[in-house]
Amino acid sequence: MNFSCNKQDLLEAITTVQKAVMSKATLPILEGIYIEAGDSLKLVGNCFDMGIEYYVNADIKEKGSIVLNSKMFSDIIRGLPDSEVFIHEKENYVVVIECSNSYFEIKGLSPEGYPMLPEIEEKDKITVQQSALKDMIRKTIYAISNDEKNKILTGSLMEASDGEITMVSLDGYRLAIAKTFIKEVVSFKAIIPGKNLGEIYKVLEQSDEKVKITLSTNQALFEFENCRIISKLIDGEYMNYRSFIPEKFETQVEVNVKEFTKGIERASVIMSEENKYPVKLIIEGDSMLITSSTKFGISKEQIEVSTNGSNMTIGFNPRFLLDSFRVIEDEKVEIYFSSPVGPCVVKPIESDKFTFMILPVRI
Amino acid sequence: MNFSCNKQDLLEAITTVQKAVMSKATLPILEGIYIEAGDSLKLVGNCFDMGIEYYVNADIKEKGSIVLNSKMFSDIIRGLPDSEVFIHEKENYVVVIECSNSYFEIKGLSPEGYPMLPEIEEKDKITVQQSALKDMIRKTIYAISNDEKNKILTGSLMEASDGEITMVSLDGYRLAIAKTFIKEVVSFKAIIPGKNLGEIYKVLEQSDEKVKITLSTNQALFEFENCRIISKLIDGEYMNYRSFIPEKFETQVEVNVKEFTKGIERASVIMSEENKYPVKLIIEGDSMLITSSTKFGISKEQIEVSTNGSNMTIGFNPRFLLDSFRVIEDEKVEIYFSSPVGPCVVKPIESDKFTFMILPVRI
Repeated sequence: MNFSCNKQDLLEAITTVQKAVMSKATLPILEGIYIEAGDSLKLVGNCFDMGIEYYVNADIKEKGSIVLNSKMFSDIIRGLPDSEVFIHEKENYVVVIECSNSYFEIKGLSPEGYPMLPEIEEKDKITVQQSALKDMIRKTIYAISNDEKNKILTGSLMEASDGEITMVSLDGYRLAIAKTFIKEVVSFKAIIPGKNLGEIYKVLEQSDEKVKITLSTNQALFEFENCRIISKLIDGEYMNYRSFIPEKFETQVEVNVKEFTKGIERASVIMSEENKYPVKLIIEGDSMLITSSTKFGISKEQIEVSTNGSNMTIGFNPRFLLDSFRVIEDEKVEIYFSSPVGPCVVKPIESDKFTFMILPVRI
Repeated sequence: MNFSCNKQDLLEAITTVQKAVMSKATLPILEGIYIEAGDSLKLVGNCFDMGIEYYVNADIKEKGSIVLNSKMFSDIIRGLPDSEVFIHEKENYVVVIECSNSYFEIKGLSPEGYPMLPEIEEKDKITVQQSALKDMIRKTIYAISNDEKNKILTGSLMEASDGEITMVSLDGYRLAIAKTFIKEVVSFKAIIPGKNLGEIYKVLEQSDEKVKITLSTNQALFEFENCRIISKLIDGEYMNYRSFIPEKFETQVEVNVKEFTKGIERASVIMSEENKYPVKLIIEGDSMLITSSTKFGISKEQIEVSTNGSNMTIGFNPRFLLDSFRVIEDEKVEIYFSSPVGPCVVKPIESDKFTFMILPVRI
């Protein structure tokens, strides 16, 4: 194996595949990055739950492959000057890395036995913009449950039908739904583990480039630019989330997202980390009082809203409200209250691109 | 008590005095900030080892004083919009904080019993530029020992004589000395706890404004702008550090600080956190090879230097070299090697503003 490539390109490849490398594994090979100089240069990280393949522009002088410890390899490349990096295998899996005046020799591992990414048997496939997929993940990921006892809810449902793709997360206290249009008229459902979605989110860029998503029975493949990410799917049937959303509302309030978020943030300030008191919203006509009362004191903030329906007093866990409101880019949204004890729904004013539902707490 | 002031000014005052407030104390009052609306607005934090007083511009409508929990108070003020903040005591130590549409009521504590800063009986005093003092702390603080068994070395020596002020830190492996000129011809020695120096460093600004330093028998007072910081001193006699610095050198090398630092950083990359192997410097004429060899592999980096004296091969703990070299602003420095097992001295080429001494490790 003998190749050279640009330092920054190589570092980006390493940083990407590293997201799928275990930092502590029982077998050293699983803490490694697989490097293959073939027709092009390919890097692979794989922790079984998720695998990432990344292709880098490189000048390949001699083909070959090796596995290098992920942390060591990335630390070395990160420390190099911004210049061409020359890498070759010396003998017995010893790899030489040269760049400018720097010279490294590190011990690698035989590439045999490295768990390569499985081939995906194409069942269904859709194409979506990178930025749209990134946005859908951001708008739903915080509502994924951490509770391993209910495995299904530790992932997001990705559902395609009628020319649109919907992502849904749900943790028993709140529900987040985001949508985007696609060209393909396919129909499928898949539950993607939250941890993997978080890593995919980091790799995706805010770009118009397309991501091809291919599903097999138990895996999803995301392909974009020089990158292929395989995620296992969570087995089972997702909740019928549509049935949870109430259809009748007692009060409908249009709020300025920034003002409302700041108000909730301020009301949270007088709560300690351990004791999350509810924040109370008192809606009287076109005025909303955001207030809280804890052992430390009380807080009040008045904001102007635009109300349809009856007055309402309702309490929320402020963290749940903030999680949702912090990912909204719209200037204003509608909040629909079904009753002081029933679910509350948040929607943008002129689209159904996303929907949040939050359960109130007793006050 | 009733006053109003600018939010940013108040926040800066809180952030400053907070550095002297205990985050966990047995008495709630010790987790508080003392606030006094007198002729001007004064905030105080005091943890006995160190106390900070800070004056803020405020419009005082009614005099009075109170103690507010430091974390709660700073969280509230930080969350407020950038506007005028109105604060008054309602009754029974309940304090109302108002700003724009936000309203808070929090429970405070009686100011009686708050440990106010002691008066300093002037013994010796000097005046130095803020930026010069900040610079001296930065150049020496990393060489302070953490070893509580030798209390003296957990502080820096501040020594004034002959129109200059010298700061010295020393931990048994290395010695850092920084100097600056002063106008006063006074002579004193004081050992200031490293922890306090770190906090003083954060409060000092990169400005030409003066700091007045006043010493009493067991305390030092730093006065600048709106701020007074009192630090206790460490009792005892500091080491006679001058006798540690060798006078004869076998090899003298002029190095480019950036190149040398990068070289040492790269050589450190193949070391794990737990196992700090030495970095070896091999000086042969005007070439220096920076090299290391660990269980992970080897690294080599060649840099050009300008050498006087014999060839030399010497090993160092790379962290100790990096700590020193990272605070040097000069482009080039001289490194003086006494022998492969004797101390090595680093100095700027054309001044004695600072000196570092480092002991080598066996290779």
